[in-house]
Amino acid sequence: MSFELTILGNSSATPTANRHPSAQYLNFLDHHIIIDCGEGTQSQLRKYKIKKSKIEYIFITHVHADHILGLPGLLFSMNLMQRTTPLHIFAPASVFEIIDLFFFHAGTKLHFEIFRHLTNHTKTEIIFEDAFLKVTSFPLFHRVATSGFLFEERSRLRKINVNECERFHVPFTSFNDLKRGKDFISADGKTLIENHLLTFEKGEPLKYAYASDTVFDERVAASVEGVDLLYHECTFAHDKLDRAIETMHTTALQAGMIAKLANVKKLLIGHFSSRYEDLNVLLNETKTEFENTEIAEEGKMFEME
Amino acid sequence: MSFELTILGNSSATPTANRHPSAQYLNFLDHHIIIDCGEGTQSQLRKYKIKKSKIEYIFITHVHADHILGLPGLLFSMNLMQRTTPLHIFAPASVFEIIDLFFFHAGTKLHFEIFRHLTNHTKTEIIFEDAFLKVTSFPLFHRVATSGFLFEERSRLRKINVNECERFHVPFTSFNDLKRGKDFISADGKTLIENHLLTFEKGEPLKYAYASDTVFDERVAASVEGVDLLYHECTFAHDKLDRAIETMHTTALQAGMIAKLANVKKLLIGHFSSRYEDLNVLLNETKTEFENTEIAEEGKMFEME
Repeated sequence: MSFELTILGNSSATPTANRHPSAQYLNFLDHHIIIDCGEGTQSQLRKYKIKKSKIEYIFITHVHADHILGLPGLLFSMNLMQRTTPLHIFAPASVFEIIDLFFFHAGTKLHFEIFRHLTNHTKTEIIFEDAFLKVTSFPLFHRVATSGFLFEERSRLRKINVNECERFHVPFTSFNDLKRGKDFISADGKTLIENHLLTFEKGEPLKYAYASDTVFDERVAASVEGVDLLYHECTFAHDKLDRAIETMHTTALQAGMIAKLANVKKLLIGHFSSRYEDLNVLLNETKTEFENTEIAEEGKMFEME
Repeated sequence: MSFELTILGNSSATPTANRHPSAQYLNFLDHHIIIDCGEGTQSQLRKYKIKKSKIEYIFITHVHADHILGLPGLLFSMNLMQRTTPLHIFAPASVFEIIDLFFFHAGTKLHFEIFRHLTNHTKTEIIFEDAFLKVTSFPLFHRVATSGFLFEERSRLRKINVNECERFHVPFTSFNDLKRGKDFISADGKTLIENHLLTFEKGEPLKYAYASDTVFDERVAASVEGVDLLYHECTFAHDKLDRAIETMHTTALQAGMIAKLANVKKLLIGHFSSRYEDLNVLLNETKTEFENTEIAEEGKMFEME
């Protein structure tokens, strides 16, 4: 599976007995990513049997406690496990300042390098790019500097049509070239079969957007236009709209409105206030605006191919 | 019960699937106290149904991540719950520096006052005292400035001998005076009964000592001499003595030696390395030196009267 998203936490500021603060583990085209890192993230990783050692990238939206408090502990544990692989952290400067103070007072010397990528919440910009994946940060509208993240498959491989390849006796060793769109030429140069006869269309690149925390704002819809999967915060039900505006959060209804405006394929809602024991109250409200919505349930994995 | 100690975490640096970093909740003579505050403490409090709102005192031994990472989140949650009661925190200056930076970047304004009591790891000193409880900090010997804490019942009340009081028709309203050692005088001034005929001995004041983290050092035994209950760290089994010395921790055997040297009544061991799945390995080793030892098991409550 090229896209596997595991929810590690879906609670807003205060954790509940069974809900942890914001954190997700994303395996997207073999990039191992943590998005936000609330208190208890390292324990959640252990619970869901995700190895800390394989994490390569951490993306932090903003400096609020429920999005960052798991970060120092995770880094300390990685260090204690003698990690030497570099780690890339994308975050506002303030997050690094806090980590540095922790390390300074604890007298910790890291065995691995941290590449610091400072995010800028005032604009949309590409913050990571390799042959397979592109990550763009975009402005969210919260009480402190906050960025959302758009994870995009950069180039997509064609799919092998196994039956046709067998019929033409195409060897496995040619599959990588075929996936990249090349025609088949036999080793002796005699046979030529055009690529489209041996492969299927590659389809559209997958896109996943993460938008938390933010007040309802149509500019967010523009930033996440047409994505396959959108995670959007939904702290309150709409009867708490005043509180949502005051604290710069989104209501369940508004999360559905953003998904509809942005014409996304599917919506995940999370970052729930601890006052809601039955999350279906929020889900049902969101669905009045956008039917294809699911709760970002802790421990649940969302897959796309 | 005048002394109730609930273990919230017993893991050293790296949490395991079912063990959290250092934290304890102590209710001693109606003083509601947190000792150390590792990552996940607020979730553990919720799990064991201890209300955050009643916490009045927090004692932090040192600035290492596994002893403090739960503190900012706990404070943020208290604030979100509109706490107005002041909170007393006893900790090294570095801990306040980190909290301040968190608050500054998060733009948080607290609704309640935090009284800051800076600990000094270089000496033994009384850091809290009221009519019922006295707390003394004492030096531990770790990689950073670390203090242990001795919690002592300050004055003890005599116990009412209910049978004798009934026989002499002593009214309930006189019990408070009797507990404080006064003789009984009837309202008409005619009857006098000496206190010792109506009450039992008050016994020795209860003492609890918390010693984590520290390398084995006989000065710790001197600081915790004769306590009723000693919590002592025990990160490794004795076959890892080299590692214990290098990281300035204690082995299971050494924890037992301290308890024996200090002539304490009972020992609790904790702060276990994540490498030990079966904690009985450590318990058995400690017991070769000090028989009356228990594991500081998470969720377990230790009581004394």
